[in-house]
Amino acid sequence: MHFDIAFIGFGTVGRGMAELLLEKKSILEKLYNITWRVVAISDLRYGSIINDNGIDLKEALSLVESNKDFKFLNGKRGLSSIEVIKESNSNLIVEVTWTNLIDGEPGYSHVKTALNLGKNVITTNKGPIALYYKELKELANRKNAQLRYKGTVMSGTPSFNIFEGPLAGCNVESIRGILNGTTNFILTEMEKGLDYEQALKEAQRLGYAEADPTMDVEGLDATAKLVILINTIFDMDIKLSDIRRKGITSIRINDIKEALNMGKRIKLIAKAEKIDNKILAEVSPQYIPISDPLANIMGVMNAITFKTDCLGDVTIVGPGAGKRATGYALISDMIAISNKLSKD
Amino acid sequence: MHFDIAFIGFGTVGRGMAELLLEKKSILEKLYNITWRVVAISDLRYGSIINDNGIDLKEALSLVESNKDFKFLNGKRGLSSIEVIKESNSNLIVEVTWTNLIDGEPGYSHVKTALNLGKNVITTNKGPIALYYKELKELANRKNAQLRYKGTVMSGTPSFNIFEGPLAGCNVESIRGILNGTTNFILTEMEKGLDYEQALKEAQRLGYAEADPTMDVEGLDATAKLVILINTIFDMDIKLSDIRRKGITSIRINDIKEALNMGKRIKLIAKAEKIDNKILAEVSPQYIPISDPLANIMGVMNAITFKTDCLGDVTIVGPGAGKRATGYALISDMIAISNKLSKD
Repeated sequence: MHFDIAFIGFGTVGRGMAELLLEKKSILEKLYNITWRVVAISDLRYGSIINDNGIDLKEALSLVESNKDFKFLNGKRGLSSIEVIKESNSNLIVEVTWTNLIDGEPGYSHVKTALNLGKNVITTNKGPIALYYKELKELANRKNAQLRYKGTVMSGTPSFNIFEGPLAGCNVESIRGILNGTTNFILTEMEKGLDYEQALKEAQRLGYAEADPTMDVEGLDATAKLVILINTIFDMDIKLSDIRRKGITSIRINDIKEALNMGKRIKLIAKAEKIDNKILAEVSPQYIPISDPLANIMGVMNAITFKTDCLGDVTIVGPGAGKRATGYALISDMIAISNKLSKD
Repeated sequence: MHFDIAFIGFGTVGRGMAELLLEKKSILEKLYNITWRVVAISDLRYGSIINDNGIDLKEALSLVESNKDFKFLNGKRGLSSIEVIKESNSNLIVEVTWTNLIDGEPGYSHVKTALNLGKNVITTNKGPIALYYKELKELANRKNAQLRYKGTVMSGTPSFNIFEGPLAGCNVESIRGILNGTTNFILTEMEKGLDYEQALKEAQRLGYAEADPTMDVEGLDATAKLVILINTIFDMDIKLSDIRRKGITSIRINDIKEALNMGKRIKLIAKAEKIDNKILAEVSPQYIPISDPLANIMGVMNAITFKTDCLGDVTIVGPGAGKRATGYALISDMIAISNKLSKD
């Protein structure tokens, strides 16, 4: 299948995908029969550009590397992201603007606009998916467009998408995961002897935590991911507020030491269980026995354990963030769309 | 797609699949558009039966449960497995006879006969795949038949098949796995204080180890699985004898204690690395740092770490054996074949 791609957002994640598109160009064509062209890029910082004959992606990347805007590229300039989605001759919108868990904007409007036009959307933006999954999924179905969002949970590491292929036909009975690398890093550093404030500073110094770390340390980020997992896997329509949530800000070094003395580790666990068609879900710090695979996930790594009817517990461990790992999530979504559409 | 199934072998694994076929009948139809009928069963112990109008699978299972043979079923009886493959009106051969790593028989002849007739084959039998992968794959391609063998490595737990969907487009740089549950169980018991002989006896008592444990404890089983992984993932044609192999029979409790004192565990690791189009591979006991996800795989669990170019290390942990888990591997192969053939 051929993709005419419009990037809405061209920050770290968008550029991560762009670099992989270039690097994997021949593999995509040879193994998956995928060809692509970038026909538009829109970014708050670098401006917007449309060129239906194709934008030189290498050039665009090198402009951004040297902090220059897109006025050096040929094409139509100055349009808003919404206009770019509408006016570009694109069949794949890559929505990679920032996450907003209050109203999902601007991602929500981007995704809705694209789907309304029957354009396929891939995104790593948790906002629109955590807040409006059901609505957007139905819109996509109605408009015969594909909507994929692998990168919203554990970046490119397999998570809910494993049930499309390798675990097809299995029922999920429960989900337990370490879905936020920042808090797991802080807890890991605290085990080494830093107190909470020091560990948070270290996370900020390394770029794992934002200046305002609320989203991570209060468990909001993990909660958004859990909502996405639940709605996707159980085909539900639950909301952020349906999930009991407790962050890690009140954890002290002593708690961590005490846990270790009992053969346990404190981890921020996102979990959900389906009982009689009801979902019991929460995000909170939990004492996990050292023998549990999740107890041994250290630093910024993510992990998830699916309890399934066919296999019991299956655990997947991998990166949950990073330019390349999240860029790859979008590549995997693109391949999945191509497989799906070449099939129908 | 509709499958007319012939079971060649109806031991634990075949029955595991049969039970899941019955249990998942409506899901298979609703979600994957798969219908099926069992048209033949052949088993050394219970005899063989062909009925192109369909065999009552529940009835067949209950006969076997009560140790009765298939003469109580309607149909043509007394044919050999090869004849059953040829004469049944089947389009899916489920080859689940015993593993033989010397010449692959009788599985090798079963698989070859089926593919030569253009019949799809799914199998959990390591013999034919570890010994004749390239030949059988080429035969399948030539005859336009599907050959799938998920259950040969880690039963139904995702292993090499993860690169078809969730990790499509990623290159594998190295593989490291705990692929044999029996030896991992023995090492786990030795950590609790049993010596090698006691731990082996315990494994035999629980049905994890055979009366002759050579295949497991000498690392042959893990080596066969590693060969299958390497040939599948790297599209190679390596042989069992290409892999340096050392089992666990010389490990003593003291070795395990010493390792723990160094913050490590001894694990039987199957590993392969691709360097300049050459494969470096071995199966041997290794000292693994406790911080490594593989170090914390205890008992009969299996695990594998793929180092990939897109994501770095991704680890999958799950069961590597068991009636239901291995039966599910065959279900997942069946779904994959249906997806593939509905697509072409």
